[in-house]
Amino acid sequence: MSKALERRAKLREDLILAAERSISAGGLAALKTRELAREIGCANGAVYNLVADVDELILLVGSRTLARLDAVLTEAESTGPASPAETLVRIAVAYCDFAAENLELWRALFEHRMTPGKPVPEWAVSDQMNLFRHIFAPLASLLPARSEAELGVTARSLFSAVHGMVLLGLEQKLIAVPIEALRREIAIIVRAMITGLT
Amino acid sequence: MSKALERRAKLREDLILAAERSISAGGLAALKTRELAREIGCANGAVYNLVADVDELILLVGSRTLARLDAVLTEAESTGPASPAETLVRIAVAYCDFAAENLELWRALFEHRMTPGKPVPEWAVSDQMNLFRHIFAPLASLLPARSEAELGVTARSLFSAVHGMVLLGLEQKLIAVPIEALRREIAIIVRAMITGLT
Repeated sequence: MSKALERRAKLREDLILAAERSISAGGLAALKTRELAREIGCANGAVYNLVADVDELILLVGSRTLARLDAVLTEAESTGPASPAETLVRIAVAYCDFAAENLELWRALFEHRMTPGKPVPEWAVSDQMNLFRHIFAPLASLLPARSEAELGVTARSLFSAVHGMVLLGLEQKLIAVPIEALRREIAIIVRAMITGLT
Repeated sequence: MSKALERRAKLREDLILAAERSISAGGLAALKTRELAREIGCANGAVYNLVADVDELILLVGSRTLARLDAVLTEAESTGPASPAETLVRIAVAYCDFAAENLELWRALFEHRMTPGKPVPEWAVSDQMNLFRHIFAPLASLLPARSEAELGVTARSLFSAVHGMVLLGLEQKLIAVPIEALRREIAIIVRAMITGLT
C-alpha cells in the first residue's frame, strides 16, 4: 500500500471510531461531521474522501456494533445447557444485556433511516441478516418439520417480539422496568412462545 | 364562556388538528409551530397562549390518537368469539391494523421525547395506561391465580412483544413483511405465548 493510501485508511478508521464515540455519547442526533473532522484533524470536506456520505458512516459504525453483538450472542450460545430452548432464552437475555450496555449504538441500528431514495447497501443488509443464524439454528432443532422459509418467518417473529420487550423495557417512558425484572420477563415470555410453538 | 375564551378554545382545537395533520403527513420531524400558526391564522408567539409548549401540543395529538386506538380495540373485543385467548389475538391484530393505517401518528406516540428534565404530565401517562385494560381483562380470565401486579407485568410483556412485531414488520427496512403475513404471524405468536403461559 502506498503511503497516501495508508494514511487514508488510518484516517478512515479514525473517522469511524470518532463517529462511534459520538453516537455512543449522544445518539444519532448528536453526530456532526464537522466535529468529527476536527477531532481526527482533517478539513471538513475531506471527510467525504473517506466515506461516501453520512449514511455510509453510520452504517460502518452499525457494522461494528453488529460484530460485537454477534460475538456476545456466540458467547451466550455456548455458555449453558445445549438444549435449543434454553439456548434461545440465553440469546434473548444476552440481546437485552447488550442493548442496555450499548444503548445509543443499539438504538442507532434501528433509528437510522437512509436518505430517501437510497437503498441500504448489500453489505449492510447481509451484516444484519447474518445475525439471524443465532435464532435460526436452535429453532430448526425445535421445529424439524418446518421448511427453511417457515423457520425464517418464525425467527423474525421471535426476534421482533424480544426486540419490542427490550425496546419498551429500556425506554424510560411508557414502560420503565428494572433490568433484572426485564431479563426475567424476557426469559418467561421466550419460554412461553417456544412451548406454544412446539 | 366569554367570547374571548370561546375564541381561544376554538383556536386551540384548530391548532391541535393542524398539528395532527402535519404529524400524520410527515411525522414528528415535520412539525413546525410557525407553519401551524400560519395555518390557523394566528401570530407565531400566540401559539404559546394556546398550549404551554411543543411537548404539550404533541401529547394532545397523542391523546387523540390513543382515544381512536381505544375505540378500535373496544370494537375488536366485541367482534368475534368471547374466549379470552381469541379476544387477545383480535386485539393484537387490531393494534397492527391501527398502526399500519395511522403510521406516523402511531410512531409519534413512541418517538416523542419530552424536553430533558420535564416529566410526562399525569394526564398523558394515564391516557397511555388506560389502554392496558384491554389486555389486562382477558389475561385475568386466562390466569386467575395471578395477582394484579403479576398480571400487570404479563400484560406489558405481551403488549411489548406484539409492539415489536408490528414495529419491525411495518418498518420498510430490516424486516419488511406484507401486512397480511404480519397479521397472520402476530396471531400465531400471540396464541403461542398464551398457550405457553397458561
